[in-house]
Amino acid sequence: MQAIQDDETAIRQLVATWLSASKQKNTNKVLSLMAEDVVFLTPGHPPMRGKSAFAEAQQQLQQIDVDAQGEIQEIKVFGEWAYVWTALSVVLMPRSGEVITRSGHTLSILQKQAGVWFLYRDANMLAPVGR
Amino acid sequence: MQAIQDDETAIRQLVATWLSASKQKNTNKVLSLMAEDVVFLTPGHPPMRGKSAFAEAQQQLQQIDVDAQGEIQEIKVFGEWAYVWTALSVVLMPRSGEVITRSGHTLSILQKQAGVWFLYRDANMLAPVGR
Repeated sequence: MQAIQDDETAIRQLVATWLSASKQKNTNKVLSLMAEDVVFLTPGHPPMRGKSAFAEAQQQLQQIDVDAQGEIQEIKVFGEWAYVWTALSVVLMPRSGEVITRSGHTLSILQKQAGVWFLYRDANMLAPVGR
Repeated sequence: MQAIQDDETAIRQLVATWLSASKQKNTNKVLSLMAEDVVFLTPGHPPMRGKSAFAEAQQQLQQIDVDAQGEIQEIKVFGEWAYVWTALSVVLMPRSGEVITRSGHTLSILQKQAGVWFLYRDANMLAPVGR
């Protein structure tokens, strides 16, 4: 049980670090939290595969301030694998233009490599709110 | 390895049965494929929790013919747990009204109970196409 609690703590820390690094636009930090062959799934877009695709997409967000709040709904650990379900609210604040709030849920598969947890698959179901 | 291959075969069968039973409006069959405390996550809606909520939602689809095609992208098995990533296209054909096609990806967590696989968490990222 202690091992699973340690894993859960590490996974909570991973989510918290992801949100704070995203807010700080620390892309290198965010990239350090994902597996090399990570896949991001979102509605209306083809799968985004690999760290480099994520880094490229982040370039387009340089002029947009981001604030994200997450609340973990569930974590389950299966040895070297786990999933985490998170309720997420993201506010996108362009330097000029309309503020957009997106909210909803993510379901993420995590992989433990050499004792460290990484994002492996990410299902993002955020949708615009209050429009 | 044989055990994992058997599990993968069983999971492919689960997905195939889900799609064919949905097409046949065999709600009881679809319900038999999910865990009692299943959760469905979709963009723009609160989580749908439990078999009974799914059954209720299906009632509203009685007047709509459904055709669904799925292509499994990835299966990973971790003992009594697994995930399956599926590319899905669903055509909704109301008896009167416009045909709607939704396409995209699902990421599902499966649980093995007494040797049988059940849907446990489902992240649905389908979006309308061709509009």
